[in-house]
Amino acid sequence: MNVIIASTSTVYGGKYLDYLTEELKSLFANIEELLFIPYARPNGMSYDEYTQLANNYFKFLDIKVNGIHTFDEPKKAIANAKAVFVGGGNTFVLVKTLYEYNLWSVLKQKIDNGMPYLGTSAGSNITGQTMRTTNDMPIVPVPSYKTMGIFPFNINPHYLDTTPELLKHMGETRDTRLKEYLHFNHTPVVALREGSYIKARKNQYLLKGSYNARVYFEINNVQEIAPETDLKPLFENS
Amino acid sequence: MNVIIASTSTVYGGKYLDYLTEELKSLFANIEELLFIPYARPNGMSYDEYTQLANNYFKFLDIKVNGIHTFDEPKKAIANAKAVFVGGGNTFVLVKTLYEYNLWSVLKQKIDNGMPYLGTSAGSNITGQTMRTTNDMPIVPVPSYKTMGIFPFNINPHYLDTTPELLKHMGETRDTRLKEYLHFNHTPVVALREGSYIKARKNQYLLKGSYNARVYFEINNVQEIAPETDLKPLFENS
Repeated sequence: MNVIIASTSTVYGGKYLDYLTEELKSLFANIEELLFIPYARPNGMSYDEYTQLANNYFKFLDIKVNGIHTFDEPKKAIANAKAVFVGGGNTFVLVKTLYEYNLWSVLKQKIDNGMPYLGTSAGSNITGQTMRTTNDMPIVPVPSYKTMGIFPFNINPHYLDTTPELLKHMGETRDTRLKEYLHFNHTPVVALREGSYIKARKNQYLLKGSYNARVYFEINNVQEIAPETDLKPLFENS
Repeated sequence: MNVIIASTSTVYGGKYLDYLTEELKSLFANIEELLFIPYARPNGMSYDEYTQLANNYFKFLDIKVNGIHTFDEPKKAIANAKAVFVGGGNTFVLVKTLYEYNLWSVLKQKIDNGMPYLGTSAGSNITGQTMRTTNDMPIVPVPSYKTMGIFPFNINPHYLDTTPELLKHMGETRDTRLKEYLHFNHTPVVALREGSYIKARKNQYLLKGSYNARVYFEINNVQEIAPETDLKPLFENS
């Protein structure tokens, strides 16, 4: 496993993927072509537009970005890929499309075999056990909430702390929503604040970035975990 | 139709339902017993606890609150009800349970026949055409996103404006999420800010409260609608 999953593609005030550049140089060292999966369609943008956005960034790393939609057989495109990046957007739209093309097992197998993988936001959500902790609206139906399951937990990207300003407008807080999830589900959740990411190898899930992750083990066991912590041992008995 | 659907049960700094008291005295005039549907379970609280919360408020209006879960046959409980209140919580949990007990048509019929109905948050979401514009996490599966459809639009409760503070942490804004919805769906959305509600009769859907509603007719036709506007004519040709 050679994976980076990030809460977001873009930190506030920064440019697309810019804060991850040093990590991506390392993740994609010796990679010349990257397979991009634009299915999540942020802002409803087209696959071509979204692929162009990714390409605009990666050309500075001398990496060519190929959108999976330009291949006749998406499953084969993944099977032949040297590296994959799944961008953010709407998780329901992404998951629906991955089911339509039956891409889950080939993607998981490639990641298990060490192919470099980058996921941001929805692209991080799908590495968890299920998409039940997405923040996105159910704008399209999905056949199942089950996702790739390369980690023994779920991801909640864009984790929002409960501040007085937010309380004025939020309805329920993110913390409440995640605890509601735990009333009905037992898979723990790693909630990542903006700018946080997990750098994962087979034997280590390293938390990176400037902020703690908030890990929901159970409804009465929620812990703040510091950057540079290996998350993997925390889930070994769960 | 004799309906109030509210963005929230509780405005910031206020008590449960307090800001709606004058409206509820009128909506539930001459009502002695209210059927409460606690299926959405905010904070995962039990049906009994949630019903007690509603009861604590309504006893000051001399209205007895009966939880639907205390009846052997929930469908018959609705058929016999003089008034219904569906509280907020998780929309997926609420919708799943309404499907399990097959309660949609009896509830819609009663509302069509003029039974007073109060919905807050998730209880407002289910009056729209679908639940595709809920803000809640998909913590349980639902057989369908289709909801009661007493209005020709969907509801987005707890509408959040895009402020610089929120932009730092939000991933995508609510506005972006609703526009993504409109890329895949044609049913318009009435987004209600906290403290806003719709007071609906057969021939008038009156917007109440201090704030504009933000109405998403189409992706390029989003309008701010002032309080005291009748929303119904806005949808007559849609």
